[in-house]
Amino acid sequence: MSDRQTQILEAAIRVIAQDGVRGLRIEKLAAEAGVSTALIYYHFNDRAGVLHSALEFINSQAQRYTDNGTSPADPRAELEKTLMLEIQDNPDVRNNSIAWGELRASAVFSDNLREQLRTTTESWVDEVTTLINQARDAELTHPDIDATAAAERLTALVEGLSERWLSGSITVERARELVSGAIVAELGRI
Amino acid sequence: MSDRQTQILEAAIRVIAQDGVRGLRIEKLAAEAGVSTALIYYHFNDRAGVLHSALEFINSQAQRYTDNGTSPADPRAELEKTLMLEIQDNPDVRNNSIAWGELRASAVFSDNLREQLRTTTESWVDEVTTLINQARDAELTHPDIDATAAAERLTALVEGLSERWLSGSITVERARELVSGAIVAELGRI
Repeated sequence: MSDRQTQILEAAIRVIAQDGVRGLRIEKLAAEAGVSTALIYYHFNDRAGVLHSALEFINSQAQRYTDNGTSPADPRAELEKTLMLEIQDNPDVRNNSIAWGELRASAVFSDNLREQLRTTTESWVDEVTTLINQARDAELTHPDIDATAAAERLTALVEGLSERWLSGSITVERARELVSGAIVAELGRI
Repeated sequence: MSDRQTQILEAAIRVIAQDGVRGLRIEKLAAEAGVSTALIYYHFNDRAGVLHSALEFINSQAQRYTDNGTSPADPRAELEKTLMLEIQDNPDVRNNSIAWGELRASAVFSDNLREQLRTTTESWVDEVTTLINQARDAELTHPDIDATAAAERLTALVEGLSERWLSGSITVERARELVSGAIVAELGRI
């Protein structure tokens, strides 16, 4: 991806985080990114193309936080770190998290993003499943764990707690505490 | 609440479930409810008043599913039943769940509903905490459970899994299986 494309997608996430998916207009995005509308159409075709690419971009950024390319020395600690990185009170994580929640919420009403959202969710679940299996193999979990179900629950919990945090029902600290406790509930004490 | 008010709020939930919070216009609501716009203004003052009352109404309906006024004979079974009632593929539950998710998502962008949403969330968590404490007292959980944290997680998980279900990332059956498994992870096997 070119720097210009990255610049446009970063701007798209800021616009979605500020005004929601329904507030994303190409003119507004062009102004936020400091580029022409023509360049946006050139790279992304249309508004749906921007949303698709924004979803991929959020996912790739989340992987960038988590994927350092090596097999982790302590997979359980890595799992905790991975999940915690989604709930942090810094502007980039907050914007990514709001935009992700908005894309999820808009898929309830429109079929456009559903397939891609399902695939992206599965790839996140797979990543977490791998860490849980690595933790089990290193005897850092109870032995009869259902890694896939635990991964589905932990990631869905991160989504549910993120929405509570972002909508002001709980603090970011409480959301993080609850995720930590969920790892213990799912994997057992060590 | 009068039958007429109930009729308007049921219509509000259908409109929100179909078009989102941002699609709720008084004219549209009047048409859906089969009443005059004047009657809506009379009962709810303005659009914000409709949203407030709709949130209360969803919450009271959820309590109607769950609250039969007696102390349950099997509080753990009651807990499972309570959580499962939120994830069912029937039109009323689905509409309530979509509308709840929409109200939550819109609170990310606007301060209007935040306070009420926080209070409503807390009352739901309290209700589930009570059931977990009753289950612990009946020795239907492991003894050193943190009932409040477990209740916060189980309800946030129900919200996260509902959004995955409603946005087409998982089936309703899988969402229900995962909630069942979460109860075992949080409370222990019996």
